[in-house]
Amino acid sequence: MWPFELSGRESPMHIAIGVYDEFTSLDAMGPYQVLQHVPGAEVVWCAAEAGIVRDDAGLLRMEVERTFDDVPRPDILVVPGGFITRKLARERHPIVDWIAGAHEHTTYTTSVCTGALLLGSAGILDGLEATTHWAAYDDLASYGAVPTEQRVVEQGKIITGAGVSAGIDMALTLAGRLAGDEVAMAIQLAIEYDPHPPYDSGAPSKAPPAIYEMVAAINDERAADASS
Amino acid sequence: MWPFELSGRESPMHIAIGVYDEFTSLDAMGPYQVLQHVPGAEVVWCAAEAGIVRDDAGLLRMEVERTFDDVPRPDILVVPGGFITRKLARERHPIVDWIAGAHEHTTYTTSVCTGALLLGSAGILDGLEATTHWAAYDDLASYGAVPTEQRVVEQGKIITGAGVSAGIDMALTLAGRLAGDEVAMAIQLAIEYDPHPPYDSGAPSKAPPAIYEMVAAINDERAADASS
Repeated sequence: MWPFELSGRESPMHIAIGVYDEFTSLDAMGPYQVLQHVPGAEVVWCAAEAGIVRDDAGLLRMEVERTFDDVPRPDILVVPGGFITRKLARERHPIVDWIAGAHEHTTYTTSVCTGALLLGSAGILDGLEATTHWAAYDDLASYGAVPTEQRVVEQGKIITGAGVSAGIDMALTLAGRLAGDEVAMAIQLAIEYDPHPPYDSGAPSKAPPAIYEMVAAINDERAADASS
Repeated sequence: MWPFELSGRESPMHIAIGVYDEFTSLDAMGPYQVLQHVPGAEVVWCAAEAGIVRDDAGLLRMEVERTFDDVPRPDILVVPGGFITRKLARERHPIVDWIAGAHEHTTYTTSVCTGALLLGSAGILDGLEATTHWAAYDDLASYGAVPTEQRVVEQGKIITGAGVSAGIDMALTLAGRLAGDEVAMAIQLAIEYDPHPPYDSGAPSKAPPAIYEMVAAINDERAADASS
Protein backbone atom coordinates (compact mmCIF):
# COMPACT_ATOMS: atom_id res chain seq x y z
CA MET A 1 0.00 0.00 0.00
CA TRP A 2 2.74 2.44 0.90
CA PRO A 3 3.98 3.20 -2.59
CA PHE A 4 7.67 3.22 -1.89
CA GLU A 5 10.03 0.31 -2.14
CA LEU A 6 13.51 0.17 -0.76
CA SER A 7 15.66 -0.71 -3.68
CA GLY A 8 17.91 -3.73 -3.75
CA ARG A 9 16.59 -5.52 -0.70
CA GLU A 10 15.05 -8.93 -0.78
CA SER A 11 14.38 -9.34 2.92
CA PRO A 12 12.85 -6.80 5.30
CA MET A 13 15.10 -4.31 7.03
CA HIS A 14 14.94 -5.08 10.74
CA ILE A 15 14.71 -2.12 13.06
CA ALA A 16 15.16 -3.30 16.64
CA ILE A 17 14.06 -1.13 19.56
CA GLY A 18 15.71 -2.45 22.70
CA VAL A 19 13.87 -1.84 25.96
CA TYR A 20 14.31 -2.60 29.63
CA ASP A 21 12.41 -1.94 32.84
CA GLU A 22 12.22 1.78 33.64
CA PHE A 23 12.81 3.04 30.11
CA THR A 24 11.23 6.42 29.35
CA SER A 25 8.21 5.69 27.22
CA LEU A 26 8.29 8.52 24.67
CA ASP A 27 12.00 7.94 24.02
CA ALA A 28 10.93 4.71 22.36
CA MET A 29 7.43 5.57 21.19
CA GLY A 30 8.42 8.60 19.12
CA PRO A 31 10.85 6.64 16.92
CA TYR A 32 8.47 3.68 16.88
CA GLN A 33 5.68 5.81 15.40
CA VAL A 34 7.99 7.18 12.70
CA LEU A 35 9.98 4.08 11.82
CA GLN A 36 7.03 1.72 11.46
CA HIS A 37 6.22 3.64 8.26
CA VAL A 38 9.62 3.17 6.61
CA PRO A 39 8.93 1.06 3.53
CA GLY A 40 10.37 -2.41 3.67
CA ALA A 41 11.19 -2.11 7.35
CA GLU A 42 10.00 -4.34 10.14
CA VAL A 43 10.15 -2.94 13.65
CA VAL A 44 10.93 -5.44 16.40
CA TRP A 45 10.68 -4.72 20.10
CA CYS A 46 13.14 -6.71 22.16
CA ALA A 47 14.39 -6.96 25.74
CA ALA A 48 16.73 -9.09 27.83
CA GLU A 49 13.87 -11.49 28.52
CA ALA A 50 10.51 -11.95 26.88
CA GLY A 51 7.55 -10.79 28.94
CA ILE A 52 6.26 -7.57 30.43
CA VAL A 53 8.54 -4.53 30.37
CA ARG A 54 7.40 -1.46 32.28
CA ASP A 55 8.37 2.15 31.83
CA ASP A 56 9.85 4.55 34.36
CA ALA A 57 6.45 5.79 35.48
CA GLY A 58 5.49 2.17 36.17
CA LEU A 59 2.16 2.66 34.42
CA LEU A 60 2.92 1.45 30.93
CA ARG A 61 3.30 -2.31 30.69
CA MET A 62 4.43 -3.64 27.32
CA GLU A 63 4.45 -7.27 26.32
CA VAL A 64 7.72 -7.88 24.51
CA GLU A 65 8.00 -11.16 22.65
CA ARG A 66 11.60 -11.12 21.43
CA THR A 67 14.84 -11.21 23.38
CA PHE A 68 18.12 -9.59 22.48
CA ASP A 69 19.38 -13.08 21.62
CA ASP A 70 16.52 -13.45 19.13
CA VAL A 71 17.64 -10.31 17.29
CA PRO A 72 21.44 -10.37 17.35
CA ARG A 73 21.95 -8.62 14.02
CA PRO A 74 19.28 -6.01 13.33
CA ASP A 75 19.94 -3.58 10.50
CA ILE A 76 19.05 -0.66 12.73
CA LEU A 77 19.37 -0.31 16.49
CA VAL A 78 17.25 2.15 18.45
CA VAL A 79 18.09 2.57 22.13
CA PRO A 80 15.79 4.67 24.33
CA GLY A 81 16.84 6.24 27.61
CA GLY A 82 15.62 6.49 31.17
CA PHE A 83 17.06 7.53 34.53
CA ILE A 84 18.06 3.91 35.08
CA THR A 85 20.52 3.96 32.15
CA ARG A 86 23.25 5.39 34.37
CA LYS A 87 23.07 2.22 36.43
CA LEU A 88 22.62 -0.11 33.45
CA ALA A 89 25.60 1.47 31.71
CA ARG A 90 27.79 1.13 34.78
CA GLU A 91 26.77 -2.45 35.49
CA ARG A 92 26.84 -3.53 31.86
CA HIS A 93 23.22 -4.65 31.65
CA PRO A 94 22.68 -7.24 28.87
CA ILE A 95 21.52 -4.44 26.58
CA VAL A 96 25.08 -3.11 26.56
CA ASP A 97 26.56 -6.34 25.24
CA TRP A 98 23.74 -6.56 22.72
CA ILE A 99 24.56 -3.08 21.45
CA ALA A 100 28.28 -3.82 21.27
CA GLY A 101 27.72 -7.02 19.30
CA ALA A 102 24.98 -5.75 17.02
CA HIS A 103 26.72 -2.47 16.21
CA GLU A 104 29.43 -4.26 14.25
CA HIS A 105 26.81 -5.24 11.68
CA THR A 106 24.27 -2.42 11.74
CA THR A 107 23.54 0.09 9.02
CA TYR A 108 22.69 2.64 11.73
CA THR A 109 23.00 2.54 15.49
CA THR A 110 20.87 5.16 17.22
CA SER A 111 19.83 6.39 20.62
CA VAL A 112 17.40 8.82 22.20
CA CYS A 113 18.02 10.72 25.41
CA THR A 114 20.15 8.82 27.91
CA GLY A 115 20.08 5.79 25.65
CA ALA A 116 23.36 7.36 24.54
CA LEU A 117 24.91 6.28 27.85
CA LEU A 118 24.24 2.68 26.88
CA LEU A 119 25.93 3.27 23.53
CA GLY A 120 28.79 4.82 25.47
CA SER A 121 29.05 1.86 27.80
CA ALA A 122 29.20 -0.39 24.73
CA GLY A 123 32.34 1.51 23.78
CA ILE A 124 31.11 2.89 20.49
CA LEU A 125 31.09 6.64 21.20
CA ASP A 126 34.73 7.14 22.12
CA GLY A 127 35.95 10.38 20.59
CA LEU A 128 32.67 11.00 18.76
CA GLU A 129 30.27 13.89 19.05
CA ALA A 130 26.95 12.78 20.48
CA THR A 131 23.94 14.14 22.30
CA THR A 132 21.68 13.04 25.13
CA HIS A 133 19.22 14.61 27.56
CA TRP A 134 20.55 18.03 28.59
CA ALA A 135 20.88 16.83 32.18
CA ALA A 136 23.24 14.01 31.20
CA TYR A 137 26.05 15.67 29.27
CA ASP A 138 28.60 14.91 32.00
CA ASP A 139 27.55 11.28 32.15
CA LEU A 140 27.92 11.07 28.39
CA ALA A 141 31.37 12.63 28.47
CA SER A 142 32.47 10.02 30.99
CA TYR A 143 32.25 7.47 28.16
CA GLY A 144 34.63 9.44 25.98
CA ALA A 145 31.96 11.08 23.84
CA VAL A 146 31.98 14.78 23.05
CA PRO A 147 28.55 16.07 24.10
CA THR A 148 26.94 18.64 21.82
CA GLU A 149 23.74 20.58 22.27
CA GLN A 150 22.31 19.74 18.86
CA ARG A 151 18.94 18.04 18.71
CA VAL A 152 20.22 15.25 16.47
CA VAL A 153 23.88 14.36 15.98
CA GLU A 154 25.06 12.22 13.07
CA GLN A 155 28.51 10.68 13.18
CA GLY A 156 28.88 8.14 10.44
CA LYS A 157 26.38 5.42 11.17
CA ILE A 158 25.73 6.55 14.73
CA ILE A 159 22.83 8.94 15.25
CA THR A 160 22.03 10.25 18.72
CA GLY A 161 19.02 12.34 19.70
CA ALA A 162 18.55 14.73 22.61
CA GLY A 163 16.05 14.23 25.44
CA VAL A 164 12.79 12.26 25.26
CA SER A 165 10.77 14.06 22.55
CA ALA A 166 13.86 14.42 20.33
CA GLY A 167 13.38 10.82 19.29
CA ILE A 168 10.83 12.01 16.75
CA ASP A 169 13.35 14.34 15.12
CA MET A 170 16.04 11.66 15.29
CA ALA A 171 13.79 9.09 13.68
CA LEU A 172 12.72 11.42 10.86
CA THR A 173 16.39 12.10 10.18
CA LEU A 174 17.03 8.37 10.15
CA ALA A 175 14.00 7.73 7.90
CA GLY A 176 15.45 10.22 5.43
CA ARG A 177 18.78 8.40 5.43
CA LEU A 178 17.12 5.00 5.02
CA ALA A 179 14.49 5.79 2.44
CA GLY A 180 15.06 9.30 1.13
CA ASP A 181 13.77 12.76 1.92
CA GLU A 182 10.42 12.26 0.20
CA VAL A 183 9.56 9.26 2.35
CA ALA A 184 10.58 11.08 5.52
CA MET A 185 8.46 14.08 4.53
CA ALA A 186 5.52 11.80 3.84
CA ILE A 187 5.89 10.24 7.27
CA GLN A 188 6.08 13.69 8.85
CA LEU A 189 2.81 14.62 7.15
CA ALA A 190 1.16 11.33 8.06
CA ILE A 191 1.85 11.93 11.75
CA GLU A 192 1.07 15.65 11.35
CA TYR A 193 4.36 16.61 12.93
CA ASP A 194 4.03 20.35 12.64
CA PRO A 195 4.81 21.16 16.26
CA HIS A 196 3.38 24.22 17.97
CA PRO A 197 4.31 23.94 21.63
CA PRO A 198 2.16 26.27 23.74
CA TYR A 199 5.30 27.38 25.61
CA ASP A 200 8.89 27.94 24.54
CA SER A 201 10.58 26.26 27.45
CA GLY A 202 11.92 23.08 25.90
CA ALA A 203 15.66 23.72 26.30
CA PRO A 204 17.80 24.94 29.21
CA SER A 205 18.65 28.12 27.29
CA LYS A 206 14.97 28.89 26.72
CA ALA A 207 13.35 28.03 30.05
CA PRO A 208 13.11 30.64 32.78
CA PRO A 209 16.13 30.15 35.08
CA ALA A 210 14.03 29.21 38.10
CA ILE A 211 12.28 26.49 36.15
CA TYR A 212 15.57 25.25 34.78
CA GLU A 213 17.09 25.05 38.25
CA MET A 214 14.10 23.18 39.57
CA VAL A 215 13.92 20.64 36.77
CA ALA A 216 17.68 20.11 36.90
CA ALA A 217 17.44 19.39 40.62
CA ILE A 218 14.59 16.93 40.10
CA ASN A 219 16.52 15.23 37.33
CA ASP A 220 19.60 14.87 39.49
CA GLU A 221 17.54 13.43 42.30
CA ARG A 222 15.75 10.94 40.06
CA ALA A 223 19.01 9.94 38.42
CA ALA A 224 20.60 9.38 41.84
CA ASP A 225 17.59 7.35 43.00
CA ALA A 226 17.68 5.19 39.89
CA SER A 227 21.43 4.67 40.17
CA SER A 228 21.50 3.53 43.74
CA MET B 1 9.72 15.04 44.90
CA TRP B 2 8.06 17.18 42.26
CA PRO B 3 7.80 20.40 44.22
CA PHE B 4 4.33 21.41 43.10
CA GLU B 5 1.07 20.59 44.77
CA LEU B 6 -2.34 20.99 43.27
CA SER B 7 -4.22 23.13 45.69
CA GLY B 8 -7.44 22.11 47.32
CA ARG B 9 -7.42 18.43 46.37
CA GLU B 10 -7.37 15.63 48.88
CA SER B 11 -7.46 12.72 46.45
CA PRO B 12 -5.42 12.28 43.29
CA MET B 13 -6.72 13.67 40.05
CA HIS B 14 -7.45 10.73 37.78
CA ILE B 15 -6.43 11.08 34.17
CA ALA B 16 -7.85 8.19 32.16
CA ILE B 17 -6.44 7.31 28.75
CA GLY B 18 -8.94 5.09 26.97
CA VAL B 19 -7.52 2.67 24.42
CA TYR B 20 -8.80 -0.02 22.07
CA ASP B 21 -7.29 -2.40 19.54
CA GLU B 22 -5.78 -0.53 16.59
CA PHE B 23 -5.27 2.79 18.34
CA THR B 24 -2.39 4.88 16.98
CA SER B 25 0.38 4.58 19.52
CA LEU B 26 1.81 8.10 19.60
CA ASP B 27 -1.69 9.61 19.89
CA ALA B 28 -1.72 8.12 23.38
CA MET B 29 1.97 8.04 24.23
CA GLY B 30 2.57 11.77 23.69
CA PRO B 31 -0.05 12.85 26.24
CA TYR B 32 0.94 9.98 28.53
CA GLN B 33 4.54 11.23 28.70
CA VAL B 34 3.40 14.77 29.51
CA LEU B 35 0.50 14.10 31.85
CA GLN B 36 2.30 11.61 34.09
CA HIS B 37 4.27 14.61 35.38
CA VAL B 38 1.26 16.69 36.40
CA PRO B 39 1.52 17.02 40.18
CA GLY B 40 -1.20 15.21 42.08
CA ALA B 41 -2.36 13.37 39.00
CA GLU B 42 -2.60 9.63 38.51
CA VAL B 43 -2.71 8.36 34.95
CA VAL B 44 -4.83 5.27 34.37
CA TRP B 45 -4.88 3.26 31.16
CA CYS B 46 -8.22 1.62 30.50
CA ALA B 47 -9.98 -0.35 27.79
CA ALA B 48 -13.26 -2.18 27.23
CA GLU B 49 -11.73 -5.33 28.68
CA ALA B 50 -8.60 -5.90 30.73
CA GLY B 51 -5.78 -7.63 28.89
CA ILE B 52 -3.59 -6.98 25.91
CA VAL B 53 -4.43 -4.04 23.66
CA ARG B 54 -2.49 -3.69 20.42
CA ASP B 55 -1.87 -0.65 18.29
CA ASP B 56 -2.66 -0.11 14.62
CA ALA B 57 0.74 -1.36 13.51
CA GLY B 58 0.09 -4.55 15.47
CA LEU B 59 3.58 -4.44 16.97
CA LEU B 60 2.93 -2.68 20.26
CA ARG B 61 1.14 -4.87 22.78
CA MET B 62 0.11 -3.12 26.00
CA GLU B 63 -1.18 -4.85 29.06
CA VAL B 64 -4.11 -2.79 30.34
CA GLU B 65 -5.39 -3.64 33.79
CA ARG B 66 -8.45 -1.43 34.12
CA THR B 67 -11.71 -1.46 32.23
CA PHE B 68 -13.90 1.50 31.36
CA ASP B 69 -16.30 0.24 34.04
CA ASP B 70 -13.48 0.45 36.59
CA VAL B 71 -12.97 4.14 35.80
CA PRO B 72 -16.44 5.58 35.22
CA ARG B 73 -15.69 9.06 36.51
CA PRO B 74 -12.14 10.16 35.76
CA ASP B 75 -11.36 13.83 36.23
CA ILE B 76 -9.74 13.97 32.81
CA LEU B 77 -10.45 11.91 29.72
CA VAL B 78 -7.87 11.44 26.99
CA VAL B 79 -9.02 9.68 23.82
CA PRO B 80 -6.43 8.76 21.18
CA GLY B 81 -7.29 8.09 17.55
CA GLY B 82 -6.63 5.51 14.89
CA PHE B 83 -8.02 4.60 11.48
CA ILE B 84 -10.45 2.25 13.23
CA THR B 85 -12.20 5.12 15.01
CA ARG B 86 -14.45 5.73 12.04
CA LYS B 87 -15.86 2.26 12.55
CA LEU B 88 -15.93 2.46 16.34
CA ALA B 89 -17.72 5.78 16.18
CA ARG B 90 -20.32 4.47 13.76
CA GLU B 91 -20.91 1.26 15.68
CA ARG B 92 -20.84 2.89 19.10
CA HIS B 93 -17.97 0.85 20.51
CA PRO B 94 -18.08 0.73 24.34
CA ILE B 95 -15.58 3.59 24.46
CA VAL B 96 -18.27 5.88 23.07
CA ASP B 97 -20.69 5.19 25.90
CA TRP B 98 -17.84 5.55 28.37
CA ILE B 99 -17.00 8.97 26.97
CA ALA B 100 -20.64 10.06 27.01
CA GLY B 101 -21.10 9.01 30.62
CA ALA B 102 -17.77 10.22 31.94
CA HIS B 103 -17.92 13.57 30.18
CA GLU B 104 -20.78 14.73 32.41
CA HIS B 105 -18.41 14.70 35.35
CA THR B 106 -15.00 15.51 33.88
CA THR B 107 -12.94 18.60 34.43
CA TYR B 108 -11.57 18.22 30.90
CA THR B 109 -12.46 15.86 28.08
CA THR B 110 -9.77 15.64 25.43
CA SER B 111 -8.86 13.87 22.24
CA VAL B 112 -5.93 13.48 19.88
CA CYS B 113 -6.23 12.92 16.15
CA THR B 114 -9.29 10.90 15.15
CA GLY B 115 -10.10 10.33 18.80
CA ALA B 116 -12.26 13.37 18.12
CA LEU B 117 -14.60 11.16 16.09
CA LEU B 118 -15.27 9.14 19.25
CA LEU B 119 -16.06 12.34 21.12
CA GLY B 120 -18.33 13.27 18.23
CA SER B 121 -20.09 9.92 18.33
CA ALA B 122 -20.64 10.48 22.06
CA GLY B 123 -22.58 13.57 21.08
CA ILE B 124 -20.42 16.10 22.86
CA LEU B 125 -19.03 18.09 19.92
CA ASP B 126 -22.28 19.27 18.35
CA GLY B 127 -21.87 22.87 17.24
CA LEU B 128 -18.38 23.15 18.72
CA GLU B 129 -15.11 23.92 17.01
CA ALA B 130 -12.75 20.97 17.15
CA THR B 131 -9.77 19.50 15.38
CA THR B 132 -8.58 16.07 14.31
CA HIS B 133 -6.11 14.57 11.85
CA TRP B 134 -6.13 16.68 8.67
CA ALA B 135 -7.45 13.72 6.69
CA ALA B 136 -10.55 13.42 8.87
CA TYR B 137 -12.15 16.87 8.82
CA ASP B 138 -15.17 15.64 6.88
CA ASP B 139 -15.67 12.74 9.25
CA LEU B 140 -15.51 15.15 12.15
CA ALA B 141 -18.04 17.50 10.56
CA SER B 142 -20.45 14.58 10.18
CA TYR B 143 -20.81 14.64 13.96
CA GLY B 144 -21.88 18.27 14.00
CA ALA B 145 -18.47 19.67 14.95
CA VAL B 146 -16.90 22.61 13.18
CA PRO B 147 -13.45 21.42 12.08
CA THR B 148 -10.64 23.93 12.40
CA GLU B 149 -7.03 23.67 11.30
CA GLN B 150 -5.56 24.74 14.63
CA ARG B 151 -3.15 22.39 16.34
CA VAL B 152 -5.07 22.49 19.63
CA VAL B 153 -8.66 23.68 20.00
CA GLU B 154 -10.13 24.59 23.37
CA GLN B 155 -13.88 24.89 23.74
CA GLY B 156 -14.79 25.10 27.37
CA LYS B 157 -13.72 21.86 28.96
CA ILE B 158 -13.24 20.07 25.66
CA ILE B 159 -9.74 20.17 24.18
CA THR B 160 -9.03 18.48 20.86
CA GLY B 161 -5.63 18.04 19.25
CA ALA B 162 -4.71 17.56 15.60
CA GLY B 163 -3.08 14.43 14.18
CA VAL B 164 -0.87 11.96 16.07
CA SER B 165 2.08 14.07 17.26
CA ALA B 166 -0.24 16.95 18.22
CA GLY B 167 -1.06 15.08 21.39
CA ILE B 168 2.11 16.48 22.92
CA ASP B 169 1.00 20.05 22.27
CA MET B 170 -2.51 19.24 23.43
CA ALA B 171 -1.25 17.70 26.66
CA LEU B 172 1.07 20.61 27.44
CA THR B 173 -1.88 22.95 26.94
CA LEU B 174 -3.93 20.77 29.28
CA ALA B 175 -1.10 20.60 31.83
CA GLY B 176 -1.05 24.39 31.88
CA ARG B 177 -4.79 24.50 32.54
CA LEU B 178 -4.57 21.88 35.28
CA ALA B 179 -1.48 23.01 37.12
CA GLY B 180 -0.43 26.39 35.76
CA ASP B 181 2.01 27.64 33.14
CA GLU B 182 5.10 27.06 35.27
CA VAL B 183 4.37 23.39 35.71
CA ALA B 184 3.69 22.97 32.01
CA MET B 185 6.93 24.74 31.15
CA ALA B 186 8.81 22.53 33.58
CA ILE B 187 7.34 19.44 31.94
CA GLN B 188 8.30 20.78 28.52
CA LEU B 189 11.87 21.18 29.69
CA ALA B 190 11.92 17.78 31.37
CA ILE B 191 10.98 16.09 28.11
CA GLU B 192 13.22 18.47 26.15
CA TYR B 193 10.38 19.39 23.84
CA ASP B 194 12.20 21.91 21.71
CA PRO B 195 11.25 20.44 18.35
CA HIS B 196 13.50 20.78 15.32
CA PRO B 197 11.99 18.62 12.60
CA PRO B 198 14.54 17.95 9.86
CA TYR B 199 11.84 18.73 7.25
CA ASP B 200 8.97 21.19 7.14
CA SER B 201 6.34 18.88 5.78
CA GLY B 202 4.10 18.33 8.77
CA ALA B 203 0.90 19.96 7.50
CA PRO B 204 -1.00 19.75 4.20
CA SER B 205 -0.22 23.40 3.48
CA LYS B 206 3.50 22.80 3.98
CA ALA B 207 4.12 19.48 2.28
CA PRO B 208 4.96 19.34 -1.42
CA PRO B 209 1.67 18.75 -3.29
CA ALA B 210 2.74 15.37 -4.65
CA ILE B 211 3.55 14.13 -1.16
CA TYR B 212 0.28 15.49 0.17
CA GLU B 213 -1.71 13.73 -2.56
CA MET B 214 0.08 10.48 -1.90
CA VAL B 215 -0.34 10.53 1.88
CA ALA B 216 -3.98 11.58 1.54
CA ALA B 217 -4.62 8.64 -0.76
CA ILE B 218 -2.92 6.23 1.64
CA ASN B 219 -4.92 7.65 4.52
CA ASP B 220 -8.19 7.24 2.66
CA GLU B 221 -7.32 3.69 1.78
CA ARG B 222 -6.34 2.75 5.32
CA ALA B 223 -9.44 4.44 6.71
CA ALA B 224 -11.62 2.52 4.25
CA ASP B 225 -9.91 -0.75 5.14
CA ALA B 226 -10.34 -0.15 8.84
CA SER B 227 -13.98 0.83 8.40
CA SER B 228 -15.06 -2.19 6.42
